[in-house]
Amino acid sequence: MTSINPMTSINRLVLLGTGLIGGSFALALKRAGRVRHVVGVGRNAQNLQRALDLNVIDSASHDAAEAVQGADFVLIATPVGQMGRLMGEIAPHLASDCIVTDGGSTKRDVVALYREHLSQHLGQCVPGHPIAGSELSGAAAAQYGLYEGRRVVLTPLPETRSDAVARVRALWEVCGASVYEMSAEEHDGIFACVSHVPHLLAFAYMNSVLDRSNASACLDFAATGFRDFTRIAGSHPDMWRDIALANRDAILADLKANAEQLKHVIGLVESGEMDALTDYIGRASRARNGWGKR
Amino acid sequence: MTSINPMTSINRLVLLGTGLIGGSFALALKRAGRVRHVVGVGRNAQNLQRALDLNVIDSASHDAAEAVQGADFVLIATPVGQMGRLMGEIAPHLASDCIVTDGGSTKRDVVALYREHLSQHLGQCVPGHPIAGSELSGAAAAQYGLYEGRRVVLTPLPETRSDAVARVRALWEVCGASVYEMSAEEHDGIFACVSHVPHLLAFAYMNSVLDRSNASACLDFAATGFRDFTRIAGSHPDMWRDIALANRDAILADLKANAEQLKHVIGLVESGEMDALTDYIGRASRARNGWGKR
Repeated sequence: MTSINPMTSINRLVLLGTGLIGGSFALALKRAGRVRHVVGVGRNAQNLQRALDLNVIDSASHDAAEAVQGADFVLIATPVGQMGRLMGEIAPHLASDCIVTDGGSTKRDVVALYREHLSQHLGQCVPGHPIAGSELSGAAAAQYGLYEGRRVVLTPLPETRSDAVARVRALWEVCGASVYEMSAEEHDGIFACVSHVPHLLAFAYMNSVLDRSNASACLDFAATGFRDFTRIAGSHPDMWRDIALANRDAILADLKANAEQLKHVIGLVESGEMDALTDYIGRASRARNGWGKR
Repeated sequence: MTSINPMTSINRLVLLGTGLIGGSFALALKRAGRVRHVVGVGRNAQNLQRALDLNVIDSASHDAAEAVQGADFVLIATPVGQMGRLMGEIAPHLASDCIVTDGGSTKRDVVALYREHLSQHLGQCVPGHPIAGSELSGAAAAQYGLYEGRRVVLTPLPETRSDAVARVRALWEVCGASVYEMSAEEHDGIFACVSHVPHLLAFAYMNSVLDRSNASACLDFAATGFRDFTRIAGSHPDMWRDIALANRDAILADLKANAEQLKHVIGLVESGEMDALTDYIGRASRARNGWGKR
């Protein structure tokens, strides 16, 4: 990297949280020659050592405040529950033009954290959500190409400078992602619908199986439909508790809509209305088969 | 095939319904040299021609009554809704020792059809369910090896002769399947739980998405979790309407248990009980991650 275009390159990148999301961002930028030095911050020494061994990061630190000194780009890629504390720690040490962005999967609550902890820095704050979920975690899960063809949503604050948004956008595009902007409210409604609620429905279904007296026989005969339907039920409890509570309002509205749908299905099966049941299933089936083909 | 062991071979196999289930059974037995002649019966001439072209069957017929003459093994592999009519058509023409089995995914209703239409032949009737679902259908979907490592459930009637059960079991084992026996009631409870109800939950969820005013934006941002959770929502409306109604009692009991679970989840999210929510998700997550590893 001989000359740096600050719009599409980073001099000192700090990852607060050195796992799949942050590590894969660093790797993609390294491969593209767009980052000089990556600092990984985390509490797990073994994970940081692994990140160093794999060249995901160039140096490691347990101290966020120290790590961000001289940084021009900070990606907060921890569970949302840790973000407020980290923002508070780094606030006094940020260079005035240092970008702060994040990878949190909920946005209204993260926006509130930016407002609370980085009120003097909001022009450079760009809340974000790279959509690249995986059951995997830790630095060892980081991979080149994770963001190729994926989507990243940015939910800028009214105060966010447009050049800050443009820089974060450009860097995600270097990683191969498509970048979208929307409000935090719109983001949270959409992801309650297509991600958070399906997880909670899958947890609920799995618990309903476990409550059966013949649960063990049921699990013995469960096949590919069950496998796919319940894959997300294997997700991490702490992470999904945090998401469920962080996006509570949108999730509750959607869970209640699902409870109404379920009541409707029970009514259709109970009454045995052939045509209405066929239409109901047909609407879902057509939409699912048409999905992703637009 | 020089000499025939009638326990593990078939002279004249009749497939009533020439699609994935029946066709794959025929192909597996052909490869093993365990069937002399396969007759495919169906209403769709194009599909039968395809089955002939692919050597899934050796001759084709539109007439079930004619086809079963001289047969020693009949596999009814149509949607359950067509089985009663077919049983009635073949009843007067069956040789006394001809096995009749089926591939229906519900069993109490099929048992009732055997009793209604084949009351003189129950000793040779072996209700069955090969568990090898797929979104694919038609003779062109038939494949060698479909049943390798899969499970087949048999739900014999009290009247069924044990040598008839043993013969059906042996032939499925030739196809590479593991064979289990249980009552029709137990079968239907288990498959309501692990297959039928997940389908209905997936249809309901998909309809809840479609009912949103921002459904299109939601579908745009849906990712891999959504993809897997909703795969079964793309299933065939007529087939799943039939299953929902055929196994109505077991399904309703299980749907109502799921409605209670959903109410419980809504309560946990609403009250924000961190530990209870973590435990609830953790129970589901551990069970899902342990599944299939026993």
